[in-house]
Amino acid sequence: MFSKSVTAALSSGSMIRAMFEQGAQLKAKYGADNVYDFALGNPDPEPDPEVIDDIRRLAAEPGIHKYMANAGFSDVRARVADYMKAQSGRAFTADDIVMVVGAAAGLSVTFHSLLDPGDEVIVLAPYFMEYNSYVGNQGGTVKPVKTLPDTFRPDIPAIRAAIGPRTKAIILNSPNNPSGAVYPEEDLLALRDALADAEAEFGTPVYVVSDEPYVKIVYDGVEVPSVARIFQNSIVVNSFSKSLALPGERIGYVAVNPDLPDKELLEAALIYSNRTLGFVNAPALFQKAIVDHLDRSVGLDAYRERRDMLYAIVTAAGFECLKPQGAFYLFPKCPIPDDKRFAEVALKHRTIVVAGSGFCYPGYFRLAYCVSKETILNSAEAFNKIYREFGT
Amino acid sequence: MFSKSVTAALSSGSMIRAMFEQGAQLKAKYGADNVYDFALGNPDPEPDPEVIDDIRRLAAEPGIHKYMANAGFSDVRARVADYMKAQSGRAFTADDIVMVVGAAAGLSVTFHSLLDPGDEVIVLAPYFMEYNSYVGNQGGTVKPVKTLPDTFRPDIPAIRAAIGPRTKAIILNSPNNPSGAVYPEEDLLALRDALADAEAEFGTPVYVVSDEPYVKIVYDGVEVPSVARIFQNSIVVNSFSKSLALPGERIGYVAVNPDLPDKELLEAALIYSNRTLGFVNAPALFQKAIVDHLDRSVGLDAYRERRDMLYAIVTAAGFECLKPQGAFYLFPKCPIPDDKRFAEVALKHRTIVVAGSGFCYPGYFRLAYCVSKETILNSAEAFNKIYREFGT
Repeated sequence: MFSKSVTAALSSGSMIRAMFEQGAQLKAKYGADNVYDFALGNPDPEPDPEVIDDIRRLAAEPGIHKYMANAGFSDVRARVADYMKAQSGRAFTADDIVMVVGAAAGLSVTFHSLLDPGDEVIVLAPYFMEYNSYVGNQGGTVKPVKTLPDTFRPDIPAIRAAIGPRTKAIILNSPNNPSGAVYPEEDLLALRDALADAEAEFGTPVYVVSDEPYVKIVYDGVEVPSVARIFQNSIVVNSFSKSLALPGERIGYVAVNPDLPDKELLEAALIYSNRTLGFVNAPALFQKAIVDHLDRSVGLDAYRERRDMLYAIVTAAGFECLKPQGAFYLFPKCPIPDDKRFAEVALKHRTIVVAGSGFCYPGYFRLAYCVSKETILNSAEAFNKIYREFGT
Repeated sequence: MFSKSVTAALSSGSMIRAMFEQGAQLKAKYGADNVYDFALGNPDPEPDPEVIDDIRRLAAEPGIHKYMANAGFSDVRARVADYMKAQSGRAFTADDIVMVVGAAAGLSVTFHSLLDPGDEVIVLAPYFMEYNSYVGNQGGTVKPVKTLPDTFRPDIPAIRAAIGPRTKAIILNSPNNPSGAVYPEEDLLALRDALADAEAEFGTPVYVVSDEPYVKIVYDGVEVPSVARIFQNSIVVNSFSKSLALPGERIGYVAVNPDLPDKELLEAALIYSNRTLGFVNAPALFQKAIVDHLDRSVGLDAYRERRDMLYAIVTAAGFECLKPQGAFYLFPKCPIPDDKRFAEVALKHRTIVVAGSGFCYPGYFRLAYCVSKETILNSAEAFNKIYREFGT
């Protein structure tokens, strides 16, 4: 009676949803303080006072809440272009920027502009599986390629083997959700070579779509190499959900590399897609509110402190785990291959994790540590007990 | 190299865009005050001070900018449900409401939830042709049925004839963009009978999707019949773009009729679609900001005054025109059948109109009167000259 594909999706793939519901039941039974919920990546800092002040000041500005061009306010686009230019060394201008309703919208708009039915998009597992929808809704299919175990770095030979004549794009997400890995420059240079070889072989470019919401959430002085600098055929998608702690407000941008061939046509396609997919334009007030805060990143010290705490707890309990250099997740290895069973066992100890299968990387589990320090400290005993259930 | 369907759409169908560009050139040449631009339906009132105050107050509330459930804040959904209940007499609850990123998003989410590839959606011409995208992006096709000439009321026998086994829905938009017509209750009751007969014949319901952004922009004491009251199988899509003059902020809702069979499944589908199409959730601050202003409508007296002024000018010049009871558009008849040529002639007189072909209703043209009174008054001479060009 309703859409068959949507109703089919509702009845399958509800593993994470089921986990949430079991978590809610646990909290109702034992009290929220006695449940260790590491499931959701909802940034917990408040936005900085300077950002709040700007929202309040701008709200009363005449004309600010009206329609603007579908690409966004031109002054905002110019400022984002300056920022991208400083980051990448490439000559971004306002024309290369489209303001969007958050990164999820930016990815949907980008793939709607790039893909024909049957096109393939390479994704590097573990990955945020909503990409399947952002690509699939436009008639494309994702082709997952596993990153290397333990480091979660790109497996360049495997990527080379996966590229075919219908490969239109590859998604990069570094710092990575869920692994926290930051792809080093040498990997990106090797990937650039691989894409150049593929273009020579198949006669069409493979676009790099870089999903960068965590690009400012990094630790230990690590540098995130600029994807826009390294890849000429790149489209950067970013949001202010994490850096400014505004995830509910849905504000982000798409930046087309100024050196991408035929970029004007792609930019027109992005603006058209932004309109016709029903986004119309990015929320007006928040376009203006972010513009003086492009360099800001909120809560970094608190995230690092909690990363260190949870990493210490989890590894002391016996789990193998990469110490992540970015984002706010740990992605430890399960002591048994069956990560779904592992997540159920964790639940018995009132600990909510997301199985790696939810990121196309079984045998691991994700912990989002944007939770209170108390939750982290109190979870130590639970992680010890969980690990001991597997008798090692 | 990029999406074939998007790049094809970019090269065709740019009639309205071309009109905008010619208008911009005219303004550059003659000054904005000497060009009469009736092309764009961008509400010109500022939001009421009470709404601005709420935005400013809420911006500093702890936690307000975070992710919430994809359906929206539950307290906001409950308040919208109360409003819908008061309007329709049906027992709406929070579960029946999904907050969305404006009505365009609401329609995209609704059709993604309803349609399978090959399904048809009936639209009543003249209509807002973005519907073609909101339906087409989900694999459906629109089937336009012309309303009656002069009154723009639904042609019930023509609708009956257009319904077939693949008809999944019909879009209603009353008050109508572009005609300003308000469909009277007797027409909706006749439509209800037609849809009941179709359901009996084909064995599946035809859902009424009611796009209601102008529902509060009405004049002369006219009552807009509640679609949710009349049609059990209805989904109401609304936004605050017009009623609160917040079009740039992208805030609206979808309301599923509480008496619609299997409504829980449709509601789950809407929430899933809201997430996976990349909207994720409606902007958080604006969900909270609209909640005390569900009954408000801004600028009504000014709209009515300008409707009366422009209607007097246009009819005095000689044009035939329905005096609209709602929205902020006039839709006069062209003195020649070729509405595109007519729009070009108007342009010579520095007057920018949109040809009826842009609404699937050739032979007419749309004037958006949400412009200054001066623009309207100064345009009188131009409309006289335009009409006289056709020698009648």
